[in-house]
Amino acid sequence: MPSDQTDLPTSADVFTAAQNIAGRIHRTPLIRSRQIDELCGANLWYKCEHLQKVGAFKARGASNALAQLPAETQMVATHSSGNHGAALAWAAAELGLACTVVMPETAPLAKRAAVAGYGAEIVICGPSQADREATLQKVVQQTGAHVVPPFDDRRIIAGQGTVALEIMQQCREQGFTPDIVIAPVGGGGLLAGIGLAVAALAPDVVVMGAEPAGADDAQRSLRGGVHITTPQAPDTIADGLRTTLGRRNYAVIKRTVRDILTVSERGIVEAMQLLWTRTKQLVEPSAAVGLAAVLEHGARFRNKNVAIVLTGGNMDLNRIADLFVDEEEIQ
Amino acid sequence: MPSDQTDLPTSADVFTAAQNIAGRIHRTPLIRSRQIDELCGANLWYKCEHLQKVGAFKARGASNALAQLPAETQMVATHSSGNHGAALAWAAAELGLACTVVMPETAPLAKRAAVAGYGAEIVICGPSQADREATLQKVVQQTGAHVVPPFDDRRIIAGQGTVALEIMQQCREQGFTPDIVIAPVGGGGLLAGIGLAVAALAPDVVVMGAEPAGADDAQRSLRGGVHITTPQAPDTIADGLRTTLGRRNYAVIKRTVRDILTVSERGIVEAMQLLWTRTKQLVEPSAAVGLAAVLEHGARFRNKNVAIVLTGGNMDLNRIADLFVDEEEIQ
Repeated sequence: MPSDQTDLPTSADVFTAAQNIAGRIHRTPLIRSRQIDELCGANLWYKCEHLQKVGAFKARGASNALAQLPAETQMVATHSSGNHGAALAWAAAELGLACTVVMPETAPLAKRAAVAGYGAEIVICGPSQADREATLQKVVQQTGAHVVPPFDDRRIIAGQGTVALEIMQQCREQGFTPDIVIAPVGGGGLLAGIGLAVAALAPDVVVMGAEPAGADDAQRSLRGGVHITTPQAPDTIADGLRTTLGRRNYAVIKRTVRDILTVSERGIVEAMQLLWTRTKQLVEPSAAVGLAAVLEHGARFRNKNVAIVLTGGNMDLNRIADLFVDEEEIQ
Repeated sequence: MPSDQTDLPTSADVFTAAQNIAGRIHRTPLIRSRQIDELCGANLWYKCEHLQKVGAFKARGASNALAQLPAETQMVATHSSGNHGAALAWAAAELGLACTVVMPETAPLAKRAAVAGYGAEIVICGPSQADREATLQKVVQQTGAHVVPPFDDRRIIAGQGTVALEIMQQCREQGFTPDIVIAPVGGGGLLAGIGLAVAALAPDVVVMGAEPAGADDAQRSLRGGVHITTPQAPDTIADGLRTTLGRRNYAVIKRTVRDILTVSERGIVEAMQLLWTRTKQLVEPSAAVGLAAVLEHGARFRNKNVAIVLTGGNMDLNRIADLFVDEEEIQ
């Protein structure tokens, strides 16, 4: 299927992306917590992408996409209810490009404020995927904007993969090799990019994905060998992981990722609380899904060196209060 | 007054403390946020003592005190409702010493859990300062434990001052000199220690304290020139700053600290929210008091390089929810 293969990103694209975005993004810290290690019986390192520009790894992909725009592009656009919109708005502002972000009316106010804060125009649409795409299509017809999709895109996947190049380098600097690299999977841009990077750099290192049990299309796709594309309406606190796995993402993940584990909602909240109290890092629910997988599938990680990507730290502060109401109820 | 002077800590004690505790505590990061800088019109650096051992700068003083115990001490004790108790419990466990912490029945469960988690014995007492001291006295009579006070102690002040040695070194590494170093003041161990360190290293750098307006005994003492020792019952969200300024602390602060600024409760919550959302660092209310002072006394900091000590990150997660109820009400 040449048309399927030719637009797939490669490991080389990840290395190129690292050059494209060097100096534009942060080399985020790799931290650890002895207390959580003792609790899990494993050696865990956390890659702090909540400390990345715009507070999420999405800055990597957006920055890489804008580094290779078609000549004379003056405007970019996307649809997003979350961090990709903010990342594209930020990256466009850095280059002096106009940017429009189509956002569903259900998007959190904090996310709207972030997009507006970077100077992008916001077009509000209905809550469904179809609403978003139709509205984005209209924007493109009216303005000729170049579309940068949130995850199913060669440049985006390659950009997100740069996080794994840094992880491998930082592990070397700290004198160890990870046995496992684990990252949350929603649309699959991050996980596919990590798969490509690790396959090239350290093929013995196992790459795993983690997703909420209530949004398990990636696990079912990978384990069943058939890409499930039915749009879901997943009910999970991990708002960044509600999207369905992309086509390119699936194609890369099935070649480079060992397995995808699912986690419970309770596990996500517990992992987030552990990260908050033990590392004092304010990560968002989606970012806790990797640690939740280690907590809930302990046997697979026992005594292993595990690098876990903390993907972002953007959330409405009011939602924090809601979470702890939930916590009280489940305890 | 020789009896007053001879037990006062000196700048040399701070340098000795740094040697005493080297390798036992973390060299915490010095971070910044461009967004908060723009909001404040100043260049702000945050010293991350919430990432210190036990989640607070208190590990420095406790560690220094235990490095110079009387010969054959086998047991230490203190009274504390907060981070000093956890710090002493941790430092004692590191040295294999027994430790008893007298805690008021009103101490947060999270603090009790931390003290117990480090293996110390907890003796619960009534809520007043008199209750605490009487109970500690009983413990000492029964056990012969050596008392390590929370702040009014030469070794504690010198230990806390080591944070300023690191700040000055990290500023040099980053190629600038701070104009101002600002830290919260409760009992005054941290602020006095910083005053001693900066006086020796960089006497042109201004040291300032910050405290809640509802617990302003340090400001009144410093501005009035008379040490106010009346116990207060201050009503502030900054639970770490409810104590009254110590005798040695006052004596050092009046010689080394330029001024003490007060901040409102609303300002503390706003500063904490800014730190949470912009730096993704989960600091406790007391730790936000330095930034609150910059926000509320902007003219004194305009265009200045300011190092702000984030003192700790320990709080009941349930209290987070309560805080945001407060936030909703004040907005």
